[in-house]
Amino acid sequence: MRTSTYRHRGTKGPTSEAVAGNGLLNRRMLLGGGAILAGAIGTAPLGSMTGAAAEAPAGGALTDPPWSLEPGAAIEPYERPSRFEKDVVRTLNNPKGLSGNQGARTPHHLLNGAITPNGLHFVVSHGGAPEIDPDQHRLVIHGLVKRPLVFNLDTLARYPMTTRVSFIECGGNGAPLFSPEPLQANLQALHGLASCAEWTGVKLSTLFDEAGVDPKAKWFIAEGADAPHLARSVPLKKGFDDAMIALYQNGERLMPANGYPMRLLLPGYEGNMNVKYLRRIKLAEGPAMSYWEARTYAPLLPNGKAYQFYLLQEVKSFITHPSPDLSLKGPGLWEISGIAYSGAGRVTKVMVSADGGKSWGEAALSEPVLSKAFTRFRMPWRWDGGPAVLQSRAWDDAGNAQPTRAEFVAARGQLKAPPPVGAVLNHHFNAVTSWGVEGTGEVKHVYA
Amino acid sequence: MRTSTYRHRGTKGPTSEAVAGNGLLNRRMLLGGGAILAGAIGTAPLGSMTGAAAEAPAGGALTDPPWSLEPGAAIEPYERPSRFEKDVVRTLNNPKGLSGNQGARTPHHLLNGAITPNGLHFVVSHGGAPEIDPDQHRLVIHGLVKRPLVFNLDTLARYPMTTRVSFIECGGNGAPLFSPEPLQANLQALHGLASCAEWTGVKLSTLFDEAGVDPKAKWFIAEGADAPHLARSVPLKKGFDDAMIALYQNGERLMPANGYPMRLLLPGYEGNMNVKYLRRIKLAEGPAMSYWEARTYAPLLPNGKAYQFYLLQEVKSFITHPSPDLSLKGPGLWEISGIAYSGAGRVTKVMVSADGGKSWGEAALSEPVLSKAFTRFRMPWRWDGGPAVLQSRAWDDAGNAQPTRAEFVAARGQLKAPPPVGAVLNHHFNAVTSWGVEGTGEVKHVYA
Repeated sequence: MRTSTYRHRGTKGPTSEAVAGNGLLNRRMLLGGGAILAGAIGTAPLGSMTGAAAEAPAGGALTDPPWSLEPGAAIEPYERPSRFEKDVVRTLNNPKGLSGNQGARTPHHLLNGAITPNGLHFVVSHGGAPEIDPDQHRLVIHGLVKRPLVFNLDTLARYPMTTRVSFIECGGNGAPLFSPEPLQANLQALHGLASCAEWTGVKLSTLFDEAGVDPKAKWFIAEGADAPHLARSVPLKKGFDDAMIALYQNGERLMPANGYPMRLLLPGYEGNMNVKYLRRIKLAEGPAMSYWEARTYAPLLPNGKAYQFYLLQEVKSFITHPSPDLSLKGPGLWEISGIAYSGAGRVTKVMVSADGGKSWGEAALSEPVLSKAFTRFRMPWRWDGGPAVLQSRAWDDAGNAQPTRAEFVAARGQLKAPPPVGAVLNHHFNAVTSWGVEGTGEVKHVYA
Repeated sequence: MRTSTYRHRGTKGPTSEAVAGNGLLNRRMLLGGGAILAGAIGTAPLGSMTGAAAEAPAGGALTDPPWSLEPGAAIEPYERPSRFEKDVVRTLNNPKGLSGNQGARTPHHLLNGAITPNGLHFVVSHGGAPEIDPDQHRLVIHGLVKRPLVFNLDTLARYPMTTRVSFIECGGNGAPLFSPEPLQANLQALHGLASCAEWTGVKLSTLFDEAGVDPKAKWFIAEGADAPHLARSVPLKKGFDDAMIALYQNGERLMPANGYPMRLLLPGYEGNMNVKYLRRIKLAEGPAMSYWEARTYAPLLPNGKAYQFYLLQEVKSFITHPSPDLSLKGPGLWEISGIAYSGAGRVTKVMVSADGGKSWGEAALSEPVLSKAFTRFRMPWRWDGGPAVLQSRAWDDAGNAQPTRAEFVAARGQLKAPPPVGAVLNHHFNAVTSWGVEGTGEVKHVYA
C-alpha cells in the first residue's frame, strides 16, 4: 500500500483532499484536469494513485499474443459483443417464456455511461415478444376527436419527428427493497428494471392536432397490439406535453421486446404506461380503470387505500460501482459511480456517503445532464481497507429529494417477511440503497 | 392532393409559411408545438397535413392479426432487431474478410436520431476483427515519461472515468464525391464511414499525469495490438485535452471491430487516429512518420504536396431523409432530416435548400447539441411534385462553414475519371451533398 504517500498539490496532509468521512475525496482534485494532479503524481512513487499500475518493461516491449500476429475475423453486417462478454446479459425471470410475466433485467454493474445498449434494455412483458409485421401494423386514434384517424409506419414517417433521451423504469423496480431484511442480491436483481435510451418518433401532440381533440376529452387510453392488450389511461395534458410515438431506439428501429414497431413514450412516467406495440389511442372524459391500472399497478398503501395513478417515477439513484458482485481488490483509490434520474425533470445534485449517511460529499455529474434521463455521477474514494457503507442520494430541479430508507418506510410501509428474489410485489421504491463494504473487499446489500 | 388547403393559424395564404423556395416551411409552424397547428388542422379536411393519414374505422375497430391473439416469444438475454429489419445492416466491401482492408458502412438512410447503435457503427479495418482476450491485454505508456507504466483492464477501472458523446469519421468518408460525375450510390455508400456513440473511459491526461511527462515530449505515438499494428502520431496537446482510453461504447464494452477491449478516442480527429486495440503509447519529441501517416493517410493535393497531419474532420452535413433508395410516395408534406457534425466543436447552424442552393431556410437542431457529436437537423417541406434539389450546409462554433462543392473542388481538386464505387482514393471530403428529386419521387445523387 502506497496510498499514504498521495498528496494534493500545495497541501500538506490528507485532510484537505477529503470532502466527507471515510475516504471521500474532493472531486475537483481528480476530475478537474491533469494540471492539478501532475504535481502530486510527479513526486509520488510508481502507481501511487491507485496502487494498481505496474512498471512497464524497458522500451515498452511486449510479447506478441496470437491476435497481434494473425489477421482477425471478417466483419459482420450486424455486430455483437465479444464472446468474452458472454456474461454481460439480461437476467430472465422466466427464461422459457412460460405463460405469465417475463422480466429481463439490465446488468447495470457491468455497464458504464448513461445510455443502455439496445441488446440490454430491460423488459417486463405480460405476453412475450410478439413478432409483428410492421407493414400490417396500424395505429388508430379515435374517441373524442373530430376525425378518427389510422396510421401506418409509412404515413407516420411523413410527420415531423423529434429525438430525446429518456429513461424508462418499471413501477416494480426496486421491489425487493420492501423486504424487512436486506435481500442478498446484486444490483441487476434489485434495480435492473430501469434503462435509458435515445428515442426518435412523432410527438403525440402532432397527431392529436391532426385528429382534432374534442374539448370534453381529458384522458386518453393507450392499448397494445400484443396478446395481453395492455391498456393504460394517461392524462391528456401529458399527450400535449412530451409524449411521443417512438419508432427508433438508439438510432435503429425499436427492439422486438421493447415495442417494435412502435410504442408510446411518456418520459418520466411509470414503465408500463409507455405502452408497447401501440395500436389504439382513445380519447375520453375519464380513465378506463383498466385491469392494469385498477389491479396490477395499484398496490395497497399502509392506510388501506390503493396507490393508483401515481404516474411519475420519482427521483432516485443507486451506486453501480462498486456494488455486490464487484468486490474491491485491495485498498487505495477507487471510483464510486452510479446512475441518478427523476421522472419530474433534471437531476440537480447527487450526494455520496461512505459512512452510512453520517457525512456526504457532492458527486460530479457527467454532462449533458438531461431531463428525465439517466445521469452518471462519479466520486473518487480512497478505501482504507476498513468497513464502509456506501450510499447515494439525488435531488431534482422540481425540488424533490430522494428519500432515506427510514422516510420511505414510514410513508409507504414494508413487507412483513422477505419476498422471493425476483418478486415484484410492491411498487415505486425510490429510497436510498446502501452497499456495505467488508474488510475483504466484498460488497453486500445492507440497510443503513 | 389536399395540401393546398393547409393554412397557418392567423394567416391567409401559403407565403407566410415559406422560409425558402420550392416548399421549405417555417419550422416553428410545425415544430413549435401543437397549439400553433391545432387551428389550421382543426378546420382542414382529413389527412390534410401530409395527405397520408386515413380515416379510422368506426369505434377504432381493428381486425386482430395473429400477434394479438397468441403469446409472443421468450425474451432473449441479449436482444437483436426484429427479423423484419434484416436489411438494416452495414454494407461490407470485403464480406469474406480476405486479406486487405475491410470496411463496414452505417446505413444512415435507415436510422434516425443522433446515436449509432453498436451493431451498426462503421468499421474500417486493416486486419479484420481480432479476438482479444481482455485479461491478457496490456496498455504500456513509455518513451519520454518519468515512469513507464503498464495497465490492464482491472487497473484502468480504478481510475476516475469520463463519459461523452463523440462521432468518429474515417478520413476516406465521402471519397466517392471526388468523382467528376456524381456516382449513383446511396447515402450508406457515399457517407457511411461516420458514426456517433457515447464513449466512457479514462482520460489520457490522467494516465499521462500518473506516468509523469518529460517536458521534451511534444507528440505521442499510439499503436494497436492487432496484426497491422497501426500506429499514428498525435500532438501531445490533444492528449491533455479531451483524449480518452475508451472502454465502453453506448454503455457496454466496445464492439470487437471497434477496438475491444480498449481504443484511443480523439474526439473530432480523423478516424484511424482513434487507434483500436490500443496497446502502446510512446511519448516522443516528434511524429513517428509511420506508414499509416506517411503514405496511406497522406493523399496528394493539386499542388503536388501531401495532405498530411490534417487531424481534424471538418464541419459537414448530409441529408438522410429523403435520400437515394428512399423515394417520395407522392406530393405533400415531408420532413427533410439529416446529420451535421464538426471535429472543431459544436454545430451552430444548418441551412437547407430545396432549389439547389438558390434559397436557404434554417433547420431545427435536436437538443442537446454537443461538441464533436452528431446533431440531428430537421426541416418541414411541402413537395409540389416537381423537380427539386435538396442540400444541407452546416456551420460550427469555431467559425467554420461547410464548403460548397465548387469551393471544395477549387481547393482540393477532383478525380479525372469516376472511381469504382466503394473506392477510398481521396480523403476529407466535407462539401455540400445534393439530392435530386425527380417528378416520380425518385431521389438521385447530383452535383449542384
